[in-house]
Amino acid sequence: MEGRKVTLRDLAMKAGLSVNTISRALKDKEDIAPATRKLIKDLAKDMGYIGNALAGSLRSGLTKTIAVIVSDVANPHFGIMVKDIDKTARKHNYTIFVINTEDDYDMEERAIFTAIRKNVDGIIICPSQRSTDNIRFLQKNGVPFVLIGRRFKDEPEFDYVICDDEKGGYLATKHLVESGHRRVLFLNGPNRISSAQERFEGYKRAHDEAGLPIEEDLIIEVGASAGDTKQVVRQLIEQKADFTGIFAFNDVIAWEAVYVLHKYGYRVPDDYAVIGFDNIQSRLFIPFQLSSISNSKGKMSKRAMDIILHKINHPESKERFHEVIDTTLVLRESTK
Amino acid sequence: MEGRKVTLRDLAMKAGLSVNTISRALKDKEDIAPATRKLIKDLAKDMGYIGNALAGSLRSGLTKTIAVIVSDVANPHFGIMVKDIDKTARKHNYTIFVINTEDDYDMEERAIFTAIRKNVDGIIICPSQRSTDNIRFLQKNGVPFVLIGRRFKDEPEFDYVICDDEKGGYLATKHLVESGHRRVLFLNGPNRISSAQERFEGYKRAHDEAGLPIEEDLIIEVGASAGDTKQVVRQLIEQKADFTGIFAFNDVIAWEAVYVLHKYGYRVPDDYAVIGFDNIQSRLFIPFQLSSISNSKGKMSKRAMDIILHKINHPESKERFHEVIDTTLVLRESTK
Repeated sequence: MEGRKVTLRDLAMKAGLSVNTISRALKDKEDIAPATRKLIKDLAKDMGYIGNALAGSLRSGLTKTIAVIVSDVANPHFGIMVKDIDKTARKHNYTIFVINTEDDYDMEERAIFTAIRKNVDGIIICPSQRSTDNIRFLQKNGVPFVLIGRRFKDEPEFDYVICDDEKGGYLATKHLVESGHRRVLFLNGPNRISSAQERFEGYKRAHDEAGLPIEEDLIIEVGASAGDTKQVVRQLIEQKADFTGIFAFNDVIAWEAVYVLHKYGYRVPDDYAVIGFDNIQSRLFIPFQLSSISNSKGKMSKRAMDIILHKINHPESKERFHEVIDTTLVLRESTK
Repeated sequence: MEGRKVTLRDLAMKAGLSVNTISRALKDKEDIAPATRKLIKDLAKDMGYIGNALAGSLRSGLTKTIAVIVSDVANPHFGIMVKDIDKTARKHNYTIFVINTEDDYDMEERAIFTAIRKNVDGIIICPSQRSTDNIRFLQKNGVPFVLIGRRFKDEPEFDYVICDDEKGGYLATKHLVESGHRRVLFLNGPNRISSAQERFEGYKRAHDEAGLPIEEDLIIEVGASAGDTKQVVRQLIEQKADFTGIFAFNDVIAWEAVYVLHKYGYRVPDDYAVIGFDNIQSRLFIPFQLSSISNSKGKMSKRAMDIILHKINHPESKERFHEVIDTTLVLRESTK
């Protein structure tokens, strides 16, 4: 049978019954005797029969699937978040599927198209923020969605769950400043995304409070690909750039920065103090004790799922969701 | 428009044209003037209209989507593999979506059902191997599939791409033995999966060659959840178990083992030598130099994608794919 999908007709031929009987049995219609229904269902399973997507949706109105669209599936931060979303989804009998965008506009557009074509009931998306078009398209299409991790400040109609990025940036920087670091390098994410902008606001607030100036040359936007940070930090060290603390946009960037510092023979935190963001360490036990900002991934994921379920189950609701989950400082051994 | 999908009817009302005209324009039928077609397509995009999955499939016969079903999306090994599969997929104009199974039988069954219901053209799956039923179902259903990372030795009809697990296990153990470790703890994966069985075969071969006995108490199956390894290693240390080398089934387990050893004040590699598997370090720059076995994730992913495309495009082909990608030893600083 390999190479061709099993149809109702195949079942009918095999069972020596009509297609109509087979169909009614699979739909549990009471005019078919229970024993016959069971026989036909067993046969269907045995032959690898599966109803098609459309038939499934027409029956219940819902497909019980949610697409989660993320920017980098290789970053454990997203992997852990997906796992958490999955856990909540299962409780509600939902299957989620993940589409990766690499923060690329076209891939994001395609991810959204694919999700809609697959008739998902809802979409949880970490938007690339290269423009509002893709999200606007989602909105026009009418599929329930919620943003996770990033928001559009000027678009109050786009529901979101984020963490308190400004506070996180503030706490991380303040900790470094209070530990005596006057020149804190900020290895930031792309400036178009809200989390990078807001973490920078926090970095500024900590500087303002301490009466320290913001030095343009200490704010560097690093690429999101593995290896991008290595190049940047290597260059800074070679140029003997003046800084002693590093605040990294996320843990992956922080790890990579420490990796390079080690290669040059520097010790962390003795020579350089380094703090990350995401607190991956709480869920993946890496043998390097990185200080970080916890953004309560579990809570964020659960809320995103709750919101999307609410929107799916109450399509008439006009309620808006703008949720900001608290961030906290987690000190380990990469700062002192 | 939010809360309801845009239909052809909506477009027709808005444009003041018939549903038939709208439909023919979107299908690029030449009896509709080019200018009208453009107008209607722009309107469709503007209103968030998207054809449904079934219509899309009927047109081309293919949905240009592939499901990738993995056991743990939070393990960077899988994240990186998914990214690599994605890269090849894009070149062929395919979108992939990922479903997580936690190596759970029911979740795997659901993942497979979901993928088939969503009319994917093919499935790449890392099987839980709790039984052959789920894969057998796939086979009966007729959707093209290929296993990645694990195989069923007794089922030659299930195509697969794996790495040379036996050789990897052999190289890792041999390296430890040759460095003077006579008692090597093997923190293995679940024994039902082929990679765990085959890595153990390699561990045995290295012992046999060195004339060392296999000590049952040094072979421990650790759970796949974050934190499972911590408990096991903690207990072994508390019991003053006799070993000096550790070979871990994967890098995540190795990291976690080192994490605990550090907590107890032990130094790696001076007190304990540790080697992992997957060589995640080549793609994620963790500031801990873990020795590992490279399984050429990039190559494995590319081959899996090539095979699935071949099977999709040549449904009549009877060719079988049993591919074993070479493994190599990558020495860093956690062994000496």
